[in-house]
Amino acid sequence: MKKNVLIIGAGGVAQVVAHKCAQNNDILGDLHIASRTKSKCDDIIASVHEKGAMKVDGPFQAHAVDATDSDAVAELIRKTGAEIVINVGTAFVNMHVLDGCIATGAAYIDTAIHEEPDKICETPPWYANYEWKKRDLCAEKGVTAILGAGFDPGVVNAFARFAIDEYMDEVKSIDIVDINAGSHGKYFATNFDPEINFREFTGVVYYWEDGQWKETTMFASGRDWDLPVVGSQRAYQSGHDEVHSLATNYPEADVRFWMGFGDHYINVFTVLKNIGLLSEQPVTTAEGQEVVPLKVVKACLPDPASLAPNYTGKTCIGDLVKGVKDGEEVEVFVYNVADHKEAYEEVGSQGISYTAGVPPVAAAILIAEGDWDAKTMKNVEELDPKPFFTVLDRIGLPTRVLEGGLGGTDKAWNA
Amino acid sequence: MKKNVLIIGAGGVAQVVAHKCAQNNDILGDLHIASRTKSKCDDIIASVHEKGAMKVDGPFQAHAVDATDSDAVAELIRKTGAEIVINVGTAFVNMHVLDGCIATGAAYIDTAIHEEPDKICETPPWYANYEWKKRDLCAEKGVTAILGAGFDPGVVNAFARFAIDEYMDEVKSIDIVDINAGSHGKYFATNFDPEINFREFTGVVYYWEDGQWKETTMFASGRDWDLPVVGSQRAYQSGHDEVHSLATNYPEADVRFWMGFGDHYINVFTVLKNIGLLSEQPVTTAEGQEVVPLKVVKACLPDPASLAPNYTGKTCIGDLVKGVKDGEEVEVFVYNVADHKEAYEEVGSQGISYTAGVPPVAAAILIAEGDWDAKTMKNVEELDPKPFFTVLDRIGLPTRVLEGGLGGTDKAWNA
Repeated sequence: MKKNVLIIGAGGVAQVVAHKCAQNNDILGDLHIASRTKSKCDDIIASVHEKGAMKVDGPFQAHAVDATDSDAVAELIRKTGAEIVINVGTAFVNMHVLDGCIATGAAYIDTAIHEEPDKICETPPWYANYEWKKRDLCAEKGVTAILGAGFDPGVVNAFARFAIDEYMDEVKSIDIVDINAGSHGKYFATNFDPEINFREFTGVVYYWEDGQWKETTMFASGRDWDLPVVGSQRAYQSGHDEVHSLATNYPEADVRFWMGFGDHYINVFTVLKNIGLLSEQPVTTAEGQEVVPLKVVKACLPDPASLAPNYTGKTCIGDLVKGVKDGEEVEVFVYNVADHKEAYEEVGSQGISYTAGVPPVAAAILIAEGDWDAKTMKNVEELDPKPFFTVLDRIGLPTRVLEGGLGGTDKAWNA
Repeated sequence: MKKNVLIIGAGGVAQVVAHKCAQNNDILGDLHIASRTKSKCDDIIASVHEKGAMKVDGPFQAHAVDATDSDAVAELIRKTGAEIVINVGTAFVNMHVLDGCIATGAAYIDTAIHEEPDKICETPPWYANYEWKKRDLCAEKGVTAILGAGFDPGVVNAFARFAIDEYMDEVKSIDIVDINAGSHGKYFATNFDPEINFREFTGVVYYWEDGQWKETTMFASGRDWDLPVVGSQRAYQSGHDEVHSLATNYPEADVRFWMGFGDHYINVFTVLKNIGLLSEQPVTTAEGQEVVPLKVVKACLPDPASLAPNYTGKTCIGDLVKGVKDGEEVEVFVYNVADHKEAYEEVGSQGISYTAGVPPVAAAILIAEGDWDAKTMKNVEELDPKPFFTVLDRIGLPTRVLEGGLGGTDKAWNA
């Protein structure tokens, strides 16, 4: 039984994590939140109290920390007595926070792959460049580290494992489809940190087919998907973390990730990219100032958290998994539908932050209760999906299944 | 008889000015060019010698100067013995260079209105905010200052004066149309300094109708124009310097400026503007760096000078002037057509730089020879257009006329 949680980060996802931890503080114990700017943590804690989200009385404290300094993270873990760290800071801090956890023995959970500021879309599989290099050390020290435990990566990895375990003898393909059919009413905005969002799309799009890595570019490969609730939606093959672990764990399956984009998004993205404004490499202005264009674009775009109050519509994220069972071809679509407005009413965030922030709290609950306290490093598909779905059902992200694939028979995962 | 020319600036227009001064150094005397970065001046002088452009033997020297420091400009004028200064530096330096001329008695020529970095599209008439405040001082000191002597503003002001003087008793309207039907082969580029280019379009579009200033916004008012050589072209009402002097000198005429834009340009501009990337006001990045977005966009876009080698096609810029002659309604279109490739072959610059850079050299020749040595401040329409056209015919920008307006009888202005 582990307890006491330290949340790293104070953005839109951290807001959701804070509310969900508060709603489950009878299990999770004392709560702490830390970021570079302490006032942002104070604001999140204030919103938790406004909603009356604390299930039982208990502490929820704010701290300032430079999360790129692993010693500072370790010191804060010791000071707070946290046994579980949920890292939802920028992806640039991941390895530093993980090092802080390894130094102290705290369990580590994140929701996205580590990135270095000056590199994008490195050699596949991405996890092998940073995280997996620490796997042996985690095992040796008995440190639980759950990588990519948001929605995608995260829940979709569990969807794939569940589909394969329950419905197939052999898996042939895993297609993950992420559709946001919501509307934020702004000219243009990204649903999470624009810097991380655009970095996903400016490099090579890696996917796994016929037992090897293949490459395409963003928006080069599009397909219409007829999905539950959100209907027919066009999605494009995109580079995404979970492709890199699923292809490693299921090398016999083709693994692709598809993200939905409207024509307006594609137009804006194309203009910014072609001009060079999405570059992570610095340019020098006529006045001699060195600037990373992408950071300026980020500064000009709306804060993703600011979208929440007016966001309407739903998201649908799921896995279409195909394989063979008893010699017959089978397919199944495992999915979740979430609603932006309901998310805002419950935790003050939009649906994209909600779907990303609820799962790591489910993972924290499973570590606290022992189900997922693996004492080593795991990607989500390497853990039992059923207790995960059970907690997710209870805390706001129910899992459903279309048996027979898209257009098939709709049911709850455990019906 | 004035002589010896100091060119301020070392961009694409300065390159044209340098070549054209060299081709006329028998009239203009010793030549000097100065900018913040001396090596750019050296490059321009080298290109002049490569083309064998010096008409007679004589000096052409490069200098470094901070043109925002009027004392430094005055010192350089004294040191070089220049009696004529052609200022084609950024529009932010204009008033400082003018002050240097007033201090030394040198004649001043520029091609665009003065701008302050943190303001766009100030109260009309724009010239009254800065330049015209120095008019009495120029008159008192006998300093010749010719404002806006590029193509537009500049030649188009002379087109208007010529049309009115030669064809009308009374003027009703002046519509200036600027079409670049050329192609640079890049995804997106501006034909001159992106910072100045975009600043023209992000603010209020002022025009003069019914004896008063009216306002619209960029791309709100478009019209198709059927022009000589370049054919039918869509142009949009834009804010431009010459509207502000012509409306003051011909208050009885409606004065509008129309610039041609393709759908692709408008799309890119609209995306950048709506996101806030064309703002001249600084933003702060997540890392705390203060940056002016427009300066970053400029740093990402191609250097306008780099477009020259592959630029093809033609420009057509002219004035459709309507009025009354002997009680009858009359109209005339006075215009020039220039060719990008021919410009590059002659002076190593593209057509937009060529049309902007040739006229101030014509003005310098007219000052040197006495025709335009006004001993006070003048906008171009306040000077006799005929000697201007005569020099322009000779040095590369011939003036033509459609009598009867668009679709009328085509002839040389002096045929």
